[in-house]
Amino acid sequence: MASTYAFSAGAHGHWRISSIVACRGAGLAPAKALTIHPWGPGSIAGVTNWRLLGTLSNTRYATRDEVDGLRRRQEGLDRPQATQAALIPIRKSAAWWDLAQDERRAIFEETSQHTAIGMDYLPAIARPLHHSRDLGEPFDFLTWFEFAPADAPAFDALLARLRATREWDFVEREVDIRLERTALA
Amino acid sequence: MASTYAFSAGAHGHWRISSIVACRGAGLAPAKALTIHPWGPGSIAGVTNWRLLGTLSNTRYATRDEVDGLRRRQEGLDRPQATQAALIPIRKSAAWWDLAQDERRAIFEETSQHTAIGMDYLPAIARPLHHSRDLGEPFDFLTWFEFAPADAPAFDALLARLRATREWDFVEREVDIRLERTALA
Repeated sequence: MASTYAFSAGAHGHWRISSIVACRGAGLAPAKALTIHPWGPGSIAGVTNWRLLGTLSNTRYATRDEVDGLRRRQEGLDRPQATQAALIPIRKSAAWWDLAQDERRAIFEETSQHTAIGMDYLPAIARPLHHSRDLGEPFDFLTWFEFAPADAPAFDALLARLRATREWDFVEREVDIRLERTALA
Repeated sequence: MASTYAFSAGAHGHWRISSIVACRGAGLAPAKALTIHPWGPGSIAGVTNWRLLGTLSNTRYATRDEVDGLRRRQEGLDRPQATQAALIPIRKSAAWWDLAQDERRAIFEETSQHTAIGMDYLPAIARPLHHSRDLGEPFDFLTWFEFAPADAPAFDALLARLRATREWDFVEREVDIRLERTALA
């Protein structure tokens, strides 16, 4: 069984929202803060500006070599120095999802080098991926990144490289939300 | 966005349940009938013996050649002669989900020939696959099959071949539910 989390935006939370920018398609309503918390049948909804759900699921494209390489280099969440974060929800087009597995893999890695680009920024940028598509959510993925303030320029470079790939031709909605850890977290 | 469906078992429904057999792991409670219906945030739960949710999602292993081959040969649901059906919910082990994509693909097709075996029984056996794992459901997949009574022995042969594969070493829960279309459907 996979683990579902809610990204709940409202007046208070573990992360203060510093900006919400609509990159492609519709944006998201303004909110002051965000909290990430487990989500299940018994969860209490609470008052939020918006809530996005995502599941930590199995890898979809990475080979054994790539998985091992990522695991050797990546670090976990909640590092004390990683006081900045970004939440980037993404939806891909119907044309992407109509592709067969080998076609998506070829665009994802052999053409766009998605994993290889991400590797260049490890361990500075921690980046778990939440899957939302099967949940019937408005986005297909919720990507979450944590990094130290000194690594913010490197994070922007990572995004610029990914957004220039062939894979991004299939992105039809993307919102870029930046956050800072609050004293409460 | 993907489409989620509920498989709801209760006293009445479009399909009469003729048997429920636990093949591996825990079974499911007895019920008289099953109905398959769209499921969303506004859905009314109703009274059921049990309800399983699944999503018609993108392919996970099939290559373009395999997808094209399947589409050329397969037929849709609700064929008048296809008065028998089987619902086979399946959960795979943590060891399966910890494998990388290339390792899962190799076991699924190069070793176990899952798609190739299924092709041998097209168009007689219609077989859409619902994904449940990201929904936090007790099963990872809900496989649904429709066929004419004369093709029931072929369907049993298909199952026997799949259950003898290396892929099935990773199946830790499987229930085999057989059904007949009711006059109401």
